[in-house]
Amino acid sequence: MIQIFTTGGTIDKVYHDANSEFEVGHSTLPELLSESNIHEGYRLRELLRKDSLEMDDTDRELVVGAVAECDCSRIVITHGTDTMAETAAALAKVTGKTIVLTGAMQPARMRRTDAVFNIGFAWASVQLLPHGVYIAMNGEVFEAGSARKNLKAQKFERV
Amino acid sequence: MIQIFTTGGTIDKVYHDANSEFEVGHSTLPELLSESNIHEGYRLRELLRKDSLEMDDTDRELVVGAVAECDCSRIVITHGTDTMAETAAALAKVTGKTIVLTGAMQPARMRRTDAVFNIGFAWASVQLLPHGVYIAMNGEVFEAGSARKNLKAQKFERV
Amino acid sequence: MIQIFTTGGTIDKVYHDANSEFEVGHSTLPELLSESNIHEGYRLRELLRKDSLEMDDTDRELVVGAVAECDCSRIVITHGTDTMAETAAALAKVTGKTIVLTGAMQPARMRRTDAVFNIGFAWASVQLLPHGVYIAMNGEVFEAGSARKNLKAQKFERV
Amino acid sequence: MIQIFTTGGTIDKVYHDANSEFEVGHSTLPELLSESNIHEGYRLRELLRKDSLEMDDTDRELVVGAVAECDCSRIVITHGTDTMAETAAALAKVTGKTIVLTGAMQPARMRRTDAVFNIGFAWASVQLLPHGVYIAMNGEVFEAGSARKNLKAQKFERV
Repeated sequence: MIQIFTTGGTIDKVYHDANSEFEVGHSTLPELLSESNIHEGYRLRELLRKDSLEMDDTDRELVVGAVAECDCSRIVITHGTDTMAETAAALAKVTGKTIVLTGAMQPARMRRTDAVFNIGFAWASVQLLPHGVYIAMNGEVFEAGSARKNLKAQKFERV
Repeated sequence: MIQIFTTGGTIDKVYHDANSEFEVGHSTLPELLSESNIHEGYRLRELLRKDSLEMDDTDRELVVGAVAECDCSRIVITHGTDTMAETAAALAKVTGKTIVLTGAMQPARMRRTDAVFNIGFAWASVQLLPHGVYIAMNGEVFEAGSARKNLKAQKFERV
Repeated sequence: MIQIFTTGGTIDKVYHDANSEFEVGHSTLPELLSESNIHEGYRLRELLRKDSLEMDDTDRELVVGAVAECDCSRIVITHGTDTMAETAAALAKVTGKTIVLTGAMQPARMRRTDAVFNIGFAWASVQLLPHGVYIAMNGEVFEAGSARKNLKAQKFERV
Repeated sequence: MIQIFTTGGTIDKVYHDANSEFEVGHSTLPELLSESNIHEGYRLRELLRKDSLEMDDTDRELVVGAVAECDCSRIVITHGTDTMAETAAALAKVTGKTIVLTGAMQPARMRRTDAVFNIGFAWASVQLLPHGVYIAMNGEVFEAGSARKNLKAQKFERV
């Protein structure tokens, strides 16, 4: 069993014409997993629906609490990329679990997006990695504390 | 020969992760027309790359001038929906041409969008309608002056 | 009110892994029209679900009969491209209606397809054309009897 | 460095209107990886372009030979699903490498496909698994010899 927690971020953004802006919408993961022939073996719970730049300490504690209390030992967290490394650091105190954070540079609802690949990548990572906290982005696995977002290159890189 | 003028609007929006916002990008029309087996018989010129709420009188005069000077009598204009009706009104003084404004409620780069249908719809409209200025949206043709955007319904409707 | 009749063809093809082949599936038109903000003002009826090379005289009479009996005067028919011209010819005896046949070279379920543009194009054509039978493909309107499919160019062209 | 070998299969199928059939086309992997922000760190070589039901012993030896001679120790093979298990078995004699076979039930060129997720999944698997031969499908990793395709369920399952 894999537990998915969603927190928002670019991956779940929708375009609202009403205000000519994006907003974080509901997660497309169930639809995306279903298209990939995955219909069971996971649970999904929405924790937040925020751009990760807007996440504060209280939000982060909410995420850490949910992960700590979860009875699954394999956890995927979808998260905005801007503060993904901070949340990974905050999760370091949770032990006995494999925790994989992923997200996207382009919304899953775009015709061209890294979201689907990243979810597939995280799905294998959470099953194969030993206990610990990881960031799974752009086809690479980073241990918590060893990655930062390179805004210009639109990639995560090793610190 | 059909002349396309692009001015920006939702139809051409891209998502920029760098600032977590949608911005107006280059037009996807040539790619979209090519996918629809249309490789010739048109010219495309970018006039503006603006959200239509940001268009001012000078911008509108630029559009009117380009349309008036154009040697094609069949003209499609892609335009943001919020002030499409204003630009249509400003174009009313141009005579001897069939001018069709269209756009989209969801960017053409989204997986689900009205952009492709709307371009197909405008493509027939500009060939079949008599001279005049028209808005072609949500499967309906409106004469300039007879349409307004219903923000809540996400549709154009008759005044 | 626009009446849509579906008969099958490439536009509705799905890929069946079980036999490593495509088959004609149910029409995606309601979903596609909904994405284009068209939720009413039309009726849809499936007449056939065939590759148009497999349509015989009986099938063609079924289509002609349904069109003749229909109480709508604006009719869109989705149809395979290989014998679209034959069905258009068979429909010539129906009078007092605007009948537009369209289809696609690539299935509507493909990431890159001409289907959505063609439906938008047909949607305007059926509203703007005088009574008669037409083929609406690759951004052009052809009167019945004046078009043939150019298999190599993947386009319809004038006879 | 990851070596990708493509052999064909559903994942690479294109729709050819000319003969109303799907055929195996060139691989979309470079485009797909680029959309997922992966521009380097891999090499790709096309070995075959076949439906896997058409692969014979000679084809299989070609694949085994290419894998054995390859100087990369991490290898992803895209392959048709019908005989993926047979090729995995044939590869068992290659030692000292992590070899991951993947593919898709729906072509990568479809709007809805498992291809992108599967490639992401294989991409993590090939980096994290010990030496051996594996099938990575529907979000699960199977060791060679322990998986078979369930045609009806459209999934791989444990023997």
